[in-house]
Amino acid sequence: MKAVVLSSGGLDSTTCLAISVDKLGSDNVSAVSIFYGQRHSKELECANNVARWYGVSHYEFDAGELMKFSDSALLNTSSKSLEKSDYAEQVEKNPRIATYVPFRNGLMISMAATFADGLYKDDNVKLYIGVHQDDAAINAYADCSKEFIDAMGEAVKIGTYGKIELVAPFVGKNKADIVKVGLDLKVPYELTRSCYERGDKPCGKCATCLDRAAAFAANGVKDPALEE
Amino acid sequence: MKAVVLSSGGLDSTTCLAISVDKLGSDNVSAVSIFYGQRHSKELECANNVARWYGVSHYEFDAGELMKFSDSALLNTSSKSLEKSDYAEQVEKNPRIATYVPFRNGLMISMAATFADGLYKDDNVKLYIGVHQDDAAINAYADCSKEFIDAMGEAVKIGTYGKIELVAPFVGKNKADIVKVGLDLKVPYELTRSCYERGDKPCGKCATCLDRAAAFAANGVKDPALEE
Repeated sequence: MKAVVLSSGGLDSTTCLAISVDKLGSDNVSAVSIFYGQRHSKELECANNVARWYGVSHYEFDAGELMKFSDSALLNTSSKSLEKSDYAEQVEKNPRIATYVPFRNGLMISMAATFADGLYKDDNVKLYIGVHQDDAAINAYADCSKEFIDAMGEAVKIGTYGKIELVAPFVGKNKADIVKVGLDLKVPYELTRSCYERGDKPCGKCATCLDRAAAFAANGVKDPALEE
Repeated sequence: MKAVVLSSGGLDSTTCLAISVDKLGSDNVSAVSIFYGQRHSKELECANNVARWYGVSHYEFDAGELMKFSDSALLNTSSKSLEKSDYAEQVEKNPRIATYVPFRNGLMISMAATFADGLYKDDNVKLYIGVHQDDAAINAYADCSKEFIDAMGEAVKIGTYGKIELVAPFVGKNKADIVKVGLDLKVPYELTRSCYERGDKPCGKCATCLDRAAAFAANGVKDPALEE
């Protein structure tokens, strides 16, 4: 059995990588990162560092061209400034929040499925993605919902003759649940980055910074990425 | 309402394009072609010519890098020679036939959904794909099945907040059915190409050439692409 893990260099996908390496061993796992023009390109540097830490092969692909007409606030071509509020507040104003990136998870899952099918000749390949419910009460992104993952999982299974299985261990969970799993697995969270902004240091104010801070607080630990 | 049509320059997708232009007018339709390293790169030239004929905008994207480890016989990096037999015979030997391209339709649908979401600000965008059942009795490709399209359609709908609807008018139909629709719509089939081989002229012997010839024969007409 082999695994391909979609890795953004963030907290969620790095914990996914930890789970897959724990189960299968680093020789049987590869990490895949998709660049799509995100404003926080430091992500990919983190993804590289994390892959090196775990000793897994790391592949990068560029899908930025597909976003050329998108006005998503998460793109580096965007002139929008990011909201300094949590997901719940943003979703209440507009369910399609400004940091929504067009069909992002569908695109990344499909790209990884295509690549994984060629990369591994095994009959059984797991494709991990770290989507989760950002908050217990809301689902900030449509393409992180259980319904979405179920549909994509079915498509991936059928479209690859059952070879590739989509695995999303954090569907329906929140970031605090993920950190709990990751702490048990000794995930090197100091190497990860979640912030939406461009700066070297996390801004501490965007929705994902707020979410991350709450997740570590809920587990009674400090975020090692914030330590000097 | 707007439409994006996945266009390969072949018979099926060109008929899809005809349907969408007939319904919405050429100003509201765009064609999208995905290069994935197919051995028959003349396809994209045909896709260009067809888009020009219909007066629709045409966008091309390259996903070839994702296929770099694939051994699909349809790729220009493949050393395999193509089988000179019809789909039914090939599927009987191995359901995952040699010209299967890893998760091709899933990838192309996802890429087009991402692009279409950025391209059009409308709430209602149709995404057309010309998948069909190559033969009344068999389904040559898993990623052309009704089950696959249903799952991808659901994922696209959920993942884009209902903005994009996947439309596959030929699911469950065969190529003869498609030609019938296309003849009514006066599709310029002389501009299209279906052959899997590299040559300038269709080989007449690969599975898709055999399928295409049978489709025109069933409609009692000559394939205009074969005329001098």
